[in-house]
Amino acid sequence: RVNGDRLWDSLMDMAKIGPGIAGGNNRQTLTDADAQGRSLFKKWCDDAGLTMGVDRMGTMFATRPGTDPDALPVYVGSHLDTQPTGGKYDGVLGVLAALEVVRTMNDLGIKTKHPIVVTNWTNEEGARFAPAMLASGVFAGVHSLDFAYNRRDPEGNLFGDELKRIGWVGDEEVGARKMHAYFEYHIEQGPILEAEEKQIGVVTHCQGLWWLEFTLTGKEAHTGSTPMNLRVNAGLAMARILEMVQDVAMGEQPGAVGGVGQVFFSPNSRNVLPGKVVFTVDIRSPDKEKLDRMRAKIEAKAPEITDALGVGCSIEAIGHFEPITFDPKLVTSVRDAAERLGYSHMNIISGAGHDACWAAKVAPATMVMCPCVGGLSHNEAEEISKEWAMAGADVLFHAVVETAEI
Amino acid sequence: RVNGDRLWDSLMDMAKIGPGIAGGNNRQTLTDADAQGRSLFKKWCDDAGLTMGVDRMGTMFATRPGTDPDALPVYVGSHLDTQPTGGKYDGVLGVLAALEVVRTMNDLGIKTKHPIVVTNWTNEEGARFAPAMLASGVFAGVHSLDFAYNRRDPEGNLFGDELKRIGWVGDEEVGARKMHAYFEYHIEQGPILEAEEKQIGVVTHCQGLWWLEFTLTGKEAHTGSTPMNLRVNAGLAMARILEMVQDVAMGEQPGAVGGVGQVFFSPNSRNVLPGKVVFTVDIRSPDKEKLDRMRAKIEAKAPEITDALGVGCSIEAIGHFEPITFDPKLVTSVRDAAERLGYSHMNIISGAGHDACWAAKVAPATMVMCPCVGGLSHNEAEEISKEWAMAGADVLFHAVVETAEI
Ligand SMILES: NC(=O)NCCC(=O)O
Ligand SMILES: NC(=O)NCCC(=O)O
Repeated sequence: RVNGDRLWDSLMDMAKIGPGIAGGNNRQTLTDADAQGRSLFKKWCDDAGLTMGVDRMGTMFATRPGTDPDALPVYVGSHLDTQPTGGKYDGVLGVLAALEVVRTMNDLGIKTKHPIVVTNWTNEEGARFAPAMLASGVFAGVHSLDFAYNRRDPEGNLFGDELKRIGWVGDEEVGARKMHAYFEYHIEQGPILEAEEKQIGVVTHCQGLWWLEFTLTGKEAHTGSTPMNLRVNAGLAMARILEMVQDVAMGEQPGAVGGVGQVFFSPNSRNVLPGKVVFTVDIRSPDKEKLDRMRAKIEAKAPEITDALGVGCSIEAIGHFEPITFDPKLVTSVRDAAERLGYSHMNIISGAGHDACWAAKVAPATMVMCPCVGGLSHNEAEEISKEWAMAGADVLFHAVVETAEI
Repeated sequence: RVNGDRLWDSLMDMAKIGPGIAGGNNRQTLTDADAQGRSLFKKWCDDAGLTMGVDRMGTMFATRPGTDPDALPVYVGSHLDTQPTGGKYDGVLGVLAALEVVRTMNDLGIKTKHPIVVTNWTNEEGARFAPAMLASGVFAGVHSLDFAYNRRDPEGNLFGDELKRIGWVGDEEVGARKMHAYFEYHIEQGPILEAEEKQIGVVTHCQGLWWLEFTLTGKEAHTGSTPMNLRVNAGLAMARILEMVQDVAMGEQPGAVGGVGQVFFSPNSRNVLPGKVVFTVDIRSPDKEKLDRMRAKIEAKAPEITDALGVGCSIEAIGHFEPITFDPKLVTSVRDAAERLGYSHMNIISGAGHDACWAAKVAPATMVMCPCVGGLSHNEAEEISKEWAMAGADVLFHAVVETAEI
């Protein structure tokens, strides 16, 4: 079993970097706080005797050597970046539990045939630079390095410039590493495990996603002196599209979600009807047909709404991953470990996207999940118990050691 | 008649300060650009032999003396501040036409019994600091100086600090001046005069307004892993309220408008359902009963919408003025002037709020309007012709001289 106190202390130490405003964290990718978090993590890796490699996307790979020089490594990781008002566990638990796995192996003097690589992927959240899971996407060959470097944050800063600014451009070619297996431990970010009173989620699938960025073009005009019938009201069109997205998602229940987290009005002045409204629709389903049907419905209905108002509408897909089926053998190793350790468990489908989804494109991959209070995540109030954190880390430890072969 | 070329040249010179991105202006109140605009205007006033006074709200009063030491002045003005993406004429025309009136009086050697005071009111637009018409509101005793100084822009800067920063805190007590009459010349900002092919709008009334600032409280949560039935979706509530406001305004046609120009999502991240949505509803009508009924309907229906979604809703009235009836004698002087000069004219109700609305609380007041292309305003593409500008300035000149008594 892992050392739960040590894991928890590391979580709390990391949470001191980039504190939020309500008990959580704002350690968005490629900020100064991200750089500080990386340094602390590197120090911990050094202390554990790991060798750090960094690729051109800034992803950190900390290696514990194996006994067989020809054996490919088992990768274990997640991400240290957070949402602007994020929790202390989303991503961080997965990285620090991976570190705890090797710390425990060191304590117990366990040697494995395959090396173990503790991994911190850059820009998983996609909050500052869309899309999410950017570095793992480049690693898996889904995006080019050039595409990634040219992503912009809302202030217009380039990903490539910001990575250089914080000093974490590595020299490794992205995706050059080959994996024997990839494990990721993460909080559920949803309500199922807690409601079902299970300690461990055995993650069999991950739902797919589309991010559809809408740009609506209305006519900037005075809110007072512009008669109702002369308005070209992009804000009203946005409102109708939000309602329509809700309807489309409700029409695909169960097993589908749809919503909008980001809206920009321009010029965003109280007495000016917006000339431009930009917002991103987030739709997801574990069922590829459902997912694509939702996209098709939304893309068919949106122009009806905007045409009726004379508003211009363009839609760009700025994020996408297909539903994932994780590797059956690794899934079994997770389930067996939970069983062996006496933890209650159930199969679960990940509602959020994870770096494991891209890793699954290039290697056998799977995930372990623990519950979180009220299913709440992407919220500073995100919470888990030390016992939950530890149970998942124990399962991760067993599955990883089994896969890395003693 | 006034010198139309000189008026136009001054308009174009002022438009060079705080240029926009699409041919208009961004000279928002209390910015460096506002300070530059004020300096240029002061220089022009000095050149015209006027004496500048500035009150504690930064409002500029440039006096041309009268012949009777006991006669109260006739005030003529508007505002030099603009929207973030504003036009070259909204407000500016009224200030520079007032200047042109005194320039023409100088040319013609006209002396009047009453002094003439060319006026530039601070923060008419209300774009940076709500409410609109802030300085004239303090002047009329509607707001306290303290209230005004404590207004904040979206970055959190205080009005009082910004006024000091740009160096335009005057020493005059706000509202100490007494007016014989107040005139304001403005572009219509609506489509009526152009459609009716009239050169002059004789402004008999101004419609009233409520700005209702909504703060909706949802639950920040992951867009992917939060099932539809567990969402507390403040963004969806906002969408439904926008649609409801549209319905309420449509239900009061004709003679009412309603819309939303400003929306802030928080944390405004693509994969986070917003925990907070703040937006401002702008409703207007020349009919006080209609105006107040719209507010009552909106305030009754909004909680039904938010309650159904479990979203918290608080509403604050952050801007208000009642419908105004302008002074019949001054209105007649404007109509007579248009008639005498051979300009086509019609009675019109102002759709936008103006400093004249607050001045009307403390003095006889009225307005003159000229058409604008397509009724477009609060848009960088706002346009008028030199002939339109001049016709209104001629009417202003005649009405002002008549009221100031030769
Ligand atoms: N785990 C997680 O929140 N990832 C961010 C990408 C997503 O929106 O699913
Ligand atoms: N004239 C003008 O646009 N004033 C701003 C205040 C308002 O929104 O009516």
